[in-house]
Amino acid sequence: MPIVTIQVTREGSKPGNDSVTADEKAALIGGVSQLLLDVLNKPLDSTFVVIQEVETENWGWGGLPVEAYRKQRGLKLD
Amino acid sequence: MPIVTIQVTREGSKPGNDSVTADEKAALIGGVSQLLLDVLNKPLDSTFVVIQEVETENWGWGGLPVEAYRKQRGLKLD
Amino acid sequence: MPIVTIQVTREGSKPGNDSVTADEKAALIGGVSQLLLDVLNKPLDSTFVVIQEVETENWGWGGLPVEAYRKQRGLKLD
Amino acid sequence: MPIVTIQVTREGSKPGNDSVTADEKAALIGGVSQLLLDVLNKPLDSTFVVIQEVETENWGWGGLPVEAYRKQRGLKLD
Amino acid sequence: MPIVTIQVTREGSKPGNDSVTADEKAALIGGVSQLLLDVLNKPLDSTFVVIQEVETENWGWGGLPVEAYRKQRGLKLD
Amino acid sequence: MPIVTIQVTREGSKPGNDSVTADEKAALIGGVSQLLLDVLNKPLDSTFVVIQEVETENWGWGGLPVEAYRKQRGLKLD
Repeated sequence: MPIVTIQVTREGSKPGNDSVTADEKAALIGGVSQLLLDVLNKPLDSTFVVIQEVETENWGWGGLPVEAYRKQRGLKLD
Repeated sequence: MPIVTIQVTREGSKPGNDSVTADEKAALIGGVSQLLLDVLNKPLDSTFVVIQEVETENWGWGGLPVEAYRKQRGLKLD
Repeated sequence: MPIVTIQVTREGSKPGNDSVTADEKAALIGGVSQLLLDVLNKPLDSTFVVIQEVETENWGWGGLPVEAYRKQRGLKLD
Repeated sequence: MPIVTIQVTREGSKPGNDSVTADEKAALIGGVSQLLLDVLNKPLDSTFVVIQEVETENWGWGGLPVEAYRKQRGLKLD
Repeated sequence: MPIVTIQVTREGSKPGNDSVTADEKAALIGGVSQLLLDVLNKPLDSTFVVIQEVETENWGWGGLPVEAYRKQRGLKLD
Repeated sequence: MPIVTIQVTREGSKPGNDSVTADEKAALIGGVSQLLLDVLNKPLDSTFVVIQEVETENWGWGGLPVEAYRKQRGLKLD
């Protein structure tokens, strides 16, 4: 009966994508539900998964909005 | 001083609606605030309610995005 | 397939109780699940409810921990 | 390693704005990350902040959607 | 920079255990972090995981506290 | 009417403390409520703050429970 909430920034995982794709969402849902079956023996039918996409200007890290933080750190995507 | 968070899929409750209506939201807010008054004696003024609507492709059940799960199970709406 | 999260302070609703009782929790679970059936036509079997009890020193209102806030305002319980 | 979630209604803080601005979001992210450094000695790099903007019709207070509640109470913005 | 929240009932996954073990928690943390790397290319260092264990009397399903629901349905663990 | 949720590990901020103290909690509550007043003009009375303390074995970073991650990285506290 687990509930899994996955929060990510609303952006693509590779060049050309500007958001998480439906296939990627399905892979997250399938993968984490399977993990709860494998580790805690929770039936697939008992697990809810909610994916929340968050605008990059609404996500902070290092005291900065995430895009400013990445620039400061020379990071690409995370 | 309760906080109630209600997460539902973003879709209509009956044919012709494609999302939760303002009236339905008001009924949820009023009903759950009243419940907290009745059961725990919490004044209406002390209760916050937040409704979060989640795209169906962002909601997983049974290891699948919810629309695929409903199809597999022959369910209509839930 | 709704998820309802109810956050309340960990304290009793009447003199002699120092926490929410099992009966009160059952009443919250039953009441809010029924509300989602009545308002949005969600089957009872599709609704998860999670009650989170929060220590009063971990809850803030009016810029103060809630017990200090109540004292300042002359409130009893909320 | 703290996670701070800030939920506010999606509306402007002053006349002419209809939502929280990018500058205001940056000020919230910077301010709360600094607070965690000052109070708990958490490095800025260890703090995540997520801002969630909630439509006013999805926010309830006093048993009513928030705009109806404000009208009833003669409040402007909160 | 994802945040994953995993909510489960506070109980053991097999006879003799009365809660989720530290090893099971480590397997959940490692597995879901790897999933986010595999599916969305998120570096392990950018993912936070929070596991929340919820008392069974605080978890509702089917309009009932979960232990009553399981009894009604003849379920064991989920 | 904001809601701020602050999640931190359950541990002390300095040697000799094994958890967040009541004074530190009050400083977090007061500080973040003031921040919302300063930045978004939200009255103190309209802000709720909830602090959630999470056991270190329930918090993951870098694919590991946080204490293992700190050891791997040579970190002390974060």
